[in-house]
Amino acid sequence: MSVTSPLPDTASRIPDPFSVACPTREVLDRIGDRWTVLVVCSLEAGPMRFSELGRRIEGISQKMLTQTLRGLERDGLVTRKVYAEVPPRVDYTLTDLGHTLTPVLAALDDWARAHFGDIVATRAAYDQTV
Amino acid sequence: MSVTSPLPDTASRIPDPFSVACPTREVLDRIGDRWTVLVVCSLEAGPMRFSELGRRIEGISQKMLTQTLRGLERDGLVTRKVYAEVPPRVDYTLTDLGHTLTPVLAALDDWARAHFGDIVATRAAYDQTV
Repeated sequence: MSVTSPLPDTASRIPDPFSVACPTREVLDRIGDRWTVLVVCSLEAGPMRFSELGRRIEGISQKMLTQTLRGLERDGLVTRKVYAEVPPRVDYTLTDLGHTLTPVLAALDDWARAHFGDIVATRAAYDQTV
Repeated sequence: MSVTSPLPDTASRIPDPFSVACPTREVLDRIGDRWTVLVVCSLEAGPMRFSELGRRIEGISQKMLTQTLRGLERDGLVTRKVYAEVPPRVDYTLTDLGHTLTPVLAALDDWARAHFGDIVATRAAYDQTV
């Protein structure tokens, strides 16, 4: 009698995002997303409310922030806690797994800040040649 | 008389991807993209031809590979060199700037490989509760 595994078959193989069916590709999509980077880096310092995150990350729509937080919760990177207060308070907190991601995303953020001037200049030069 | 700068105004400000108009957000979009991660990590070992990249990165369409390489070239991360051979040979090579990105993206790739099992399991559990 076989035992049903809660994981798809692929999860037991060696992870390789170069393979077409490997779920690490979806994980890359999640963690490389610009909104994920900004939400995870914001939560590194401690729990925040939805409205605080919205103010911190300029220009993010309520819908996009909701989607991003729900995706991060689904992936086990963030927990959502509702407090029975009036008005109700909802806090978002990085999980232990979420905390392991912060140095990786902070390095991405640092690289973008350090090199965006070079990139903007190179783009301008490239666009004049094509 | 003012001298025209080749850079937009924003490039001279302190970069901050939390600000709505900062071009670091576009840079984050570029470097966090799953295809960028796979192309840049592939080219780390040395120059590759278009067809070699297509074979290495399973499931990437010709159109997507072309777009990704053109974007990386435009951003100064990759150079494209055409050799006058029959049939013509086209090589793609990481620039010095591209090489500064490889440890950052390799860390992203490592994280995805190390934790995708946890994430797949957490997703399955989450999906049963909603």
